[in-house]
Amino acid sequence: MSYNIAKWIWYPGDFEIYHALKLNCRREERGFVWPAYWRLDDCWHNVLFRRKCILIKPEEISVTGNGIGYFSVDGKKYSYGSRVVIEPGEHLIQVSAAKIDGLPSVFIRAGEFSSDERWEASYLTRTWLPSGCNNMYNCENDNPEIFRFNYQHLEPASKEENEKGTLYDFGVQTFARLCFDGITGNQPIRFFYGESETEALDTDFSYIRDVVPALFSEYICKPRAFRYVFIPRIDTQYNIHSEYEYVPFDKRGFFRCSDDKINKIWDTAVYTFHLNSREFFLDGIKRDRWVWSGDAYQSYLINYYLFFDTDICKRTIIALRGKDPIEQHINTIMDYSLLWILSIWDYYTYTGDVDFVRMIYPRMKSMMGFCQSRTDEEGFMAGFDDDWVFIDWADIDKTGAVCAEQMLFARSLEISSECAILMGEDGSGYLRQAKLIRMKIDSFFWNEKLGAYIDSYESGKNNVTRHANIFAIIFGFADDNRKVSIIKNVILNEKIPQITTPYFKFYELDALCRIGKLGVVLQGILEYWGGMLDMGATTFWEEYSPKADFPEHYEMYGDKYGKSLCHAWGASPIYLLGKYFLGVRPTATGYDRFEVTPRLDGLEWIEGKVPIPCGTIYIYMDKTLLRVCSSRIGGTLILGKTRLELPADEEIEILL
Amino acid sequence: MSYNIAKWIWYPGDFEIYHALKLNCRREERGFVWPAYWRLDDCWHNVLFRRKCILIKPEEISVTGNGIGYFSVDGKKYSYGSRVVIEPGEHLIQVSAAKIDGLPSVFIRAGEFSSDERWEASYLTRTWLPSGCNNMYNCENDNPEIFRFNYQHLEPASKEENEKGTLYDFGVQTFARLCFDGITGNQPIRFFYGESETEALDTDFSYIRDVVPALFSEYICKPRAFRYVFIPRIDTQYNIHSEYEYVPFDKRGFFRCSDDKINKIWDTAVYTFHLNSREFFLDGIKRDRWVWSGDAYQSYLINYYLFFDTDICKRTIIALRGKDPIEQHINTIMDYSLLWILSIWDYYTYTGDVDFVRMIYPRMKSMMGFCQSRTDEEGFMAGFDDDWVFIDWADIDKTGAVCAEQMLFARSLEISSECAILMGEDGSGYLRQAKLIRMKIDSFFWNEKLGAYIDSYESGKNNVTRHANIFAIIFGFADDNRKVSIIKNVILNEKIPQITTPYFKFYELDALCRIGKLGVVLQGILEYWGGMLDMGATTFWEEYSPKADFPEHYEMYGDKYGKSLCHAWGASPIYLLGKYFLGVRPTATGYDRFEVTPRLDGLEWIEGKVPIPCGTIYIYMDKTLLRVCSSRIGGTLILGKTRLELPADEEIEILL
Repeated sequence: MSYNIAKWIWYPGDFEIYHALKLNCRREERGFVWPAYWRLDDCWHNVLFRRKCILIKPEEISVTGNGIGYFSVDGKKYSYGSRVVIEPGEHLIQVSAAKIDGLPSVFIRAGEFSSDERWEASYLTRTWLPSGCNNMYNCENDNPEIFRFNYQHLEPASKEENEKGTLYDFGVQTFARLCFDGITGNQPIRFFYGESETEALDTDFSYIRDVVPALFSEYICKPRAFRYVFIPRIDTQYNIHSEYEYVPFDKRGFFRCSDDKINKIWDTAVYTFHLNSREFFLDGIKRDRWVWSGDAYQSYLINYYLFFDTDICKRTIIALRGKDPIEQHINTIMDYSLLWILSIWDYYTYTGDVDFVRMIYPRMKSMMGFCQSRTDEEGFMAGFDDDWVFIDWADIDKTGAVCAEQMLFARSLEISSECAILMGEDGSGYLRQAKLIRMKIDSFFWNEKLGAYIDSYESGKNNVTRHANIFAIIFGFADDNRKVSIIKNVILNEKIPQITTPYFKFYELDALCRIGKLGVVLQGILEYWGGMLDMGATTFWEEYSPKADFPEHYEMYGDKYGKSLCHAWGASPIYLLGKYFLGVRPTATGYDRFEVTPRLDGLEWIEGKVPIPCGTIYIYMDKTLLRVCSSRIGGTLILGKTRLELPADEEIEILL
Repeated sequence: MSYNIAKWIWYPGDFEIYHALKLNCRREERGFVWPAYWRLDDCWHNVLFRRKCILIKPEEISVTGNGIGYFSVDGKKYSYGSRVVIEPGEHLIQVSAAKIDGLPSVFIRAGEFSSDERWEASYLTRTWLPSGCNNMYNCENDNPEIFRFNYQHLEPASKEENEKGTLYDFGVQTFARLCFDGITGNQPIRFFYGESETEALDTDFSYIRDVVPALFSEYICKPRAFRYVFIPRIDTQYNIHSEYEYVPFDKRGFFRCSDDKINKIWDTAVYTFHLNSREFFLDGIKRDRWVWSGDAYQSYLINYYLFFDTDICKRTIIALRGKDPIEQHINTIMDYSLLWILSIWDYYTYTGDVDFVRMIYPRMKSMMGFCQSRTDEEGFMAGFDDDWVFIDWADIDKTGAVCAEQMLFARSLEISSECAILMGEDGSGYLRQAKLIRMKIDSFFWNEKLGAYIDSYESGKNNVTRHANIFAIIFGFADDNRKVSIIKNVILNEKIPQITTPYFKFYELDALCRIGKLGVVLQGILEYWGGMLDMGATTFWEEYSPKADFPEHYEMYGDKYGKSLCHAWGASPIYLLGKYFLGVRPTATGYDRFEVTPRLDGLEWIEGKVPIPCGTIYIYMDKTLLRVCSSRIGGTLILGKTRLELPADEEIEILL
């Protein structure tokens, strides 16, 4: 008997919520565990799956379950493991699965009715949704509770021994499990990790530490972020190596240019980004290893120019949202709830995946409803109770309603309106509210005298930072006149404090790109990211201030090793170079229509690939020549005033 | 250093919800597992505890956690297991606990600030509540994930061997784990349980079966309900015994009288009830072993006349309610949601435990809100979608709004009003709605011609069953004239089908007691429960029809062994004899005021004890003499028109 490919199925979204629960309980700091400080949701533990099927020939059904339960054919129940032949005709198959301490899931073999998203799932209420599943779990022996990673053997690049102990340097930041073998002696081996040599050697303060218990001759440690490992002198022999743990994403995007430093920045950004792309898009690999919606928002965009992996986007979006009822902002941060809404429209724009919008739309509506329920008398979203109004690690005046938040709020409403229309619902309520907020942003936050948006109107301080002004450009709040004014009065005004996080550098450079200042952006990348490379970085950092020096570079949050030296939001050059230098961006959903506007802006030549659904766009450009090859139609090449429709799978060459 | 008694603490209600999840996934039937068919909730997996303390001397703090986390003193974090001395002064101690696959809980030693209900708990939202804890878990080595049972060695009472195998009879129904030892040979031992001999021997159909895997010389099986065990002939030697699993409730209530059959009924009811009183009040021990709100409603009332154990009431009430948001009725049954509301007022009336009302009140309000949201244009609660309108296993006309449901709905609203007032809130909205429902019940369901309440008005059938008419008496819908009419036209009318479940026998006999017909009730008990004893019952059954015979007695739900032969709702004689024959009932909360109205009604003498908070009331009565001893003041002895205030701890004797 031949079978269609069966997949493990679960309640939709619960795979993500379950793995997020595990992930959010993994943070360690100097020997104690620090679970995330927001509500953590769990999967449903009792699920029913069903499928109506019409058979024209007899079909054997068998069920493997991760959990306990039964399956029934037209109401008659059987145990997992039974093999039942179903006669031709119409039947209702139901499969029950419960798992008290994990994710209930089942793997059903039933010919063309084998388990996949066409089965419906319910947590025993009257609502049925398409089951959750993914391509990682399509063998009977798989266990959806265990996330699948690949491993790669990694030896220390160097080893330094003195009377205090041994320092191993693995050459680059990595995320790996340290493996001991050939252990002689019966003492525990205590040791210290460091993203820097300084941290590994500072055994009182190094963030991550570990111990090989006594009496093992071999031992594999938990995976950790590190470059250095320091093992204090001990009367024991052992060998060590490590196993790099990663998800084998296909690096479909690519970038090269005439500037070697930019190339090195791109490579380092790719490595940084890959290290942080795992079950979900993480913030950084050393410290929290949590999923933060604002950080993830940028990772989605970076991903569209590197992996174009839709699964990790979906996983992250679902995990961040959690379960109903919503009681607090995502990660407790107001802007992070709003960026979550924004991320759905970006996802849809880049991928055209309307099925996912359909799946997430009810959860999006309730998220939007939660935000709408927390507005003040002006209709603005100000921080309630202990909401965290973040925006950036910067000195922003956060009194009352904050300008940057209202811009995200207005955009969220506009996107909710678009999604409602896409789902065949009425989006006009959202749109009306968005228009009102836009109007009020104008009248409350635009300061004509300063020629800039102010942080807060309630405080009366008229404080200007870059943040709201950057959002105004990116999200279309500033018209051309205001843009000119903002560039002059804010962005290029040295009196306005500089951005110090790669997080907001992303938005600042994005804004500059949108107004065509690619030369400034290139210089900015070279100085800021190049500056980190000059400091010896092998991955990009959570924060970088060119004026600081070591060991202050390691310090953050009042902790001498508090900073993460491998932070996803450091990888934005991938996005900036792909979107604005290679110049590829969708103008209709899923790249049905797209623009290609390659720019050199000071570089001698550029070459690269941008991934799109089921294909790529290749670009080579130097001062005399442009070559473009698109794997699909729908693209328009734009060179100054020239516009050219791109053919599919055919390289075109243009002499410039 | 001396310590106060510390208790394990958890998020309030989560101990109960976690154990209910486990319990609801334990049902087995002929080799497959059958998880409950409603939404099962789980505990929160990430919890924060806090306490502000003012120390006048240094105090050492240490934390043991079931899960992962840390504790912090004024923001500085430490690992579990650390011992930290806190200096005199004011401090904020916080303890984080997360457990992905179970119930996070902590045990904190900190002198008089050791963990107990004075610590607050949050699942990381901004709401803080008093922590959950109970007296079962007050040692550091305890694990709140494991419910504590006692075990008692039990040998088979007899053994019968023939060529097919060996039948063991343990003499009575029990709930026990079967233990094998001295196993020779290396085959698995497959065997079959039976509540009856017939079931144990019917190996194709016996409900519960088990297997001792090969290669064990000793083996302890899961606990099961059985009286008989049949082990088919196998070429293996073994010894068996069993271990009765139970919670050591204190049987504080007691009843004896001149009729030996009644005494045997009381004893059998006590045994039946004890078998079903475990983590929660179960329905029956063999089949579902689930917690059903309607069944539990009667168990609470029975409990007040036997164990007076408040913990099992609280555990059951919390477990049944589950988490927010409410999406379906408790156990999917409309009347069971309403009986849940009723149970809270009974609990408060008998125990006076206002702390519990405070804890459960928000969950009660949302339950009531859910019910209110499901009313029809008349304001009645009719079944929505796949709501189950149960009332009883009987032929009730369930078209549209059903009378018995509206009576429960009105009572629920009245009780919600009372609880609101008790909590210092405005209960008048509930009360107005209750009055309206009462009025409408009168006009829609009372049929003057039939002199009875009809099941449904929508169908136009004017069908009369006992059920709504019984509720009308119990819950005060019928005035005296109507009561007379109901007694004549319904209760004593043989044309109205008899009740066949002990479940509704409870209500019928309760109603008869309320109108003083104790002689009829006594006769009813002797016939119905006595009838089961005559059939050889050692515990009372889920259903009993005197007209049936074996093996039909074992049949229910279309399954030849579907009936439970040890069902909690069979234990109502405990309640009836205690409340109406010994005649003890509270008239103010927590027995602050109570009545004692002993009645013989055909018995020569009665003697017994009724438990009250922190005490008991003793009664002996025969035709010439009455002796009463109450452990507290507040009681009024009522004998005909004589009323006598009872003293505390002093036996009074009255010649009749």
